[in-house]
Amino acid sequence: MTAEEFRQHGRLVVDWIARYLDQVEQYPVLSPLRPGEVRSRLPQHPPQQAEPFEQVWKDFEELVLPGVTHWQSPRFFGYFPCNRWPSSILGELLSAGLGVQGMLWLTSPACTELETHVLDWLVELLDLPRRFLSTASGGGVIQDTASSATLCAVIAARERATGFSSRRGGCPPGLTAYASNQAHSSVAKAMALAGLGMDNLRLVDVDASFALRPDALRSAIEADRKAGRKPFCVVATVGTTSSLAFDPLRPIGEICREYGLWLHVDAAMAGSAAICPEFRDIHDGLELADSYCFNPHKWLGVNFDCDCFYVADRESLIRAMSVTPEYLRNPASEAGTVFDYRDWQIPLGRRFRALKLWFVLRCEGAEGLRSLIRRHVALAAEFADGVRADPAWELAAPANLNLVCFRHRGGDAANQAIQERVNASGKMFLTHTRLNDRWTLRLCVGGLTTQRHHVAEAWQMLREAARFVTSS
Amino acid sequence: MTAEEFRQHGRLVVDWIARYLDQVEQYPVLSPLRPGEVRSRLPQHPPQQAEPFEQVWKDFEELVLPGVTHWQSPRFFGYFPCNRWPSSILGELLSAGLGVQGMLWLTSPACTELETHVLDWLVELLDLPRRFLSTASGGGVIQDTASSATLCAVIAARERATGFSSRRGGCPPGLTAYASNQAHSSVAKAMALAGLGMDNLRLVDVDASFALRPDALRSAIEADRKAGRKPFCVVATVGTTSSLAFDPLRPIGEICREYGLWLHVDAAMAGSAAICPEFRDIHDGLELADSYCFNPHKWLGVNFDCDCFYVADRESLIRAMSVTPEYLRNPASEAGTVFDYRDWQIPLGRRFRALKLWFVLRCEGAEGLRSLIRRHVALAAEFADGVRADPAWELAAPANLNLVCFRHRGGDAANQAIQERVNASGKMFLTHTRLNDRWTLRLCVGGLTTQRHHVAEAWQMLREAARFVTSS
Repeated sequence: MTAEEFRQHGRLVVDWIARYLDQVEQYPVLSPLRPGEVRSRLPQHPPQQAEPFEQVWKDFEELVLPGVTHWQSPRFFGYFPCNRWPSSILGELLSAGLGVQGMLWLTSPACTELETHVLDWLVELLDLPRRFLSTASGGGVIQDTASSATLCAVIAARERATGFSSRRGGCPPGLTAYASNQAHSSVAKAMALAGLGMDNLRLVDVDASFALRPDALRSAIEADRKAGRKPFCVVATVGTTSSLAFDPLRPIGEICREYGLWLHVDAAMAGSAAICPEFRDIHDGLELADSYCFNPHKWLGVNFDCDCFYVADRESLIRAMSVTPEYLRNPASEAGTVFDYRDWQIPLGRRFRALKLWFVLRCEGAEGLRSLIRRHVALAAEFADGVRADPAWELAAPANLNLVCFRHRGGDAANQAIQERVNASGKMFLTHTRLNDRWTLRLCVGGLTTQRHHVAEAWQMLREAARFVTSS
Repeated sequence: MTAEEFRQHGRLVVDWIARYLDQVEQYPVLSPLRPGEVRSRLPQHPPQQAEPFEQVWKDFEELVLPGVTHWQSPRFFGYFPCNRWPSSILGELLSAGLGVQGMLWLTSPACTELETHVLDWLVELLDLPRRFLSTASGGGVIQDTASSATLCAVIAARERATGFSSRRGGCPPGLTAYASNQAHSSVAKAMALAGLGMDNLRLVDVDASFALRPDALRSAIEADRKAGRKPFCVVATVGTTSSLAFDPLRPIGEICREYGLWLHVDAAMAGSAAICPEFRDIHDGLELADSYCFNPHKWLGVNFDCDCFYVADRESLIRAMSVTPEYLRNPASEAGTVFDYRDWQIPLGRRFRALKLWFVLRCEGAEGLRSLIRRHVALAAEFADGVRADPAWELAAPANLNLVCFRHRGGDAANQAIQERVNASGKMFLTHTRLNDRWTLRLCVGGLTTQRHHVAEAWQMLREAARFVTSS
């Protein structure tokens, strides 16, 4: 493909995406294909000769697109959203076009410095503790996901707790970590991957709002200490995946200080809300945290992947993660005057992801992002009002920010059937969780183009499905 | 930004990239900026109001671009290449435009199935062992980098060696792994991150070609067994980072079979060469491996990130990595009829990276990829001939495939000065390593647009710099 052909085909793709931005609503939200259907349509053997782009594009539209679940549909209410403003698509495109690799400062100074700078901007925009600034002792880095950020945090915590010896000698037994029983599965996965073992993660009881109980945390820590184990880390969640519960950071942080534990705060979904001053109480006590992450790819419209991971003491992270071979040595790194982000993450290489974040912050402005978040929160509140007003339904948890957990009063089987029915319609998509051991529907408002009528129609469809399910 | 504005700005970005594809050679390869220069030009505070795209773009060109090191320049000979065909840029663009998240099969069936399918195609194209096929007991997955793939392999090996108990209970002491003393730093990093400890990685001696010595591997394993430790894993390298040395897979694999060790093969750079039948001997014995990875983002022109990671027994990997919370349960996953790639990797979420790989394979065809690799190998051989013919210079290692390790006979200081001088010129960029404890220059031919005259001019510049350095 020559540069001129790229120009021509690039315009085709840009035009297609522009139409898709406007028309995504027309597709069934959840792909209706059965397992194996996409593969069965693809040729068994790879092409030996180059094929015209037009043919590849035709196959994309005919063979691949029907197998896509449309996360960008205004009728997608499942999981947490995974947004992308048009400006962030352009940032990703430019990053691919430049094709630079930012493992070291030297391998593209702008890739590192723009990232550091924009992550400092976000400290200001979310009013995060100033110790997370690169100009203080901390700093931020873009990770692919909160799962990876949590793993890095657990590893840094493990190293600090063992005097940076387990990276050399291996983990000693008995290190224990703590999170609520509502914490994301990535915390258990991090314990498993880091060699510490999932069984050494204590899943602490929660209160009626599904938030971690500090008294239960203290009891668990005390019990482990009495048993000769070594508590080393707490992962608190600001906005749990099941129900967007907020663990109380201040009392948790005080306990961490008292016992010398690393506090990591996972605000993957909800953290973005702090760009609005009226929601900043979710971060009360965050200055007691050692590390923190939130995902602009969830709720600031930066296309996946973009998790912002901050540490209060960058030296702990770097010392935990760094391994330097000769072929990566260079004067700038040796002088210690630059950040080499390879030492802040698991992979060595990295894309120029700061571009898309920078594009979004500038093209939308903080006010644009605030408007988006406020609209989502208002629409979720209206949906929750609808649930409260209908005696056949109930809320299953406090309706926080943009998530409503609710259920029909007809029991688990009815709720499961309702969910299957609305999802099979292709006209909306929502997912479920279990709260208090009952099947619970989750409706998360997060689409860039989701408007009042989409949410109202979703509620209408759910009620119709309930009537069908409970009468049949 | 509306869809119409996206269309307009998207064309601007596409046109700019098209020009960049043709004109990248005009920029200084290595950014001349000093630490902090990019940041010092950026506003201290983030924008509150949306700004016009034209202003952002102007700032990109004026403030950011000068801080870019141009990996796509035909005069970039550093590290290993990080290529991207125009077709792969379009694949990345489309992936960002669709904005789907492929953590589960359900969350976009095509995202999973196209990936599985294309990775099976690559088994055929590289003539890899058929046990890596998804239609056999194995399968492939796209990881961000070989570092992450190696970490997954080490963790799966750890779990298999401990009966899948360390993921629950933590690592037992005494597990030891093996790699050559030329292996990539990601192997030591994987041991550190996985809680096994870098000191439990034995760096095995190499022969004169810098390839791992099987007899030394056997001795190291025996010594550990005698000392009561438990050997569990060997990482062999097909194309080391320093000098592109090839560890002999067959005898290494036989030793692994004999002692019951997991064999991971890291072919990040060199694996792609196997698309050409004449280079397939680098993989002799690969059927003895448990896992394998190579990077199409290095040498098949798929834009970063795209590492293809294969396992012979997918159940071992999935069992090591999987943690399933309620909110991710769904009928397709429960039935076991689909792959959920979240269980094949560290992060939970994932982009639709198969698109760019599919675009490249179809738009370039296997023949197009073979031509690229053959041209690079031929150009590197010509460069090596030049070094051999000049009595002031010498080869420092066998010149394999597209990498030449060489040095001026004037000693370490002279070679370092030569390197600094040519890199500071902005007209070429190369990096170094140490071989036999001597400063060694590395010239890797990998640019999509690198032609004979670029390599000839690089050699000319190096000789001129040597004359300057040794006469001053």
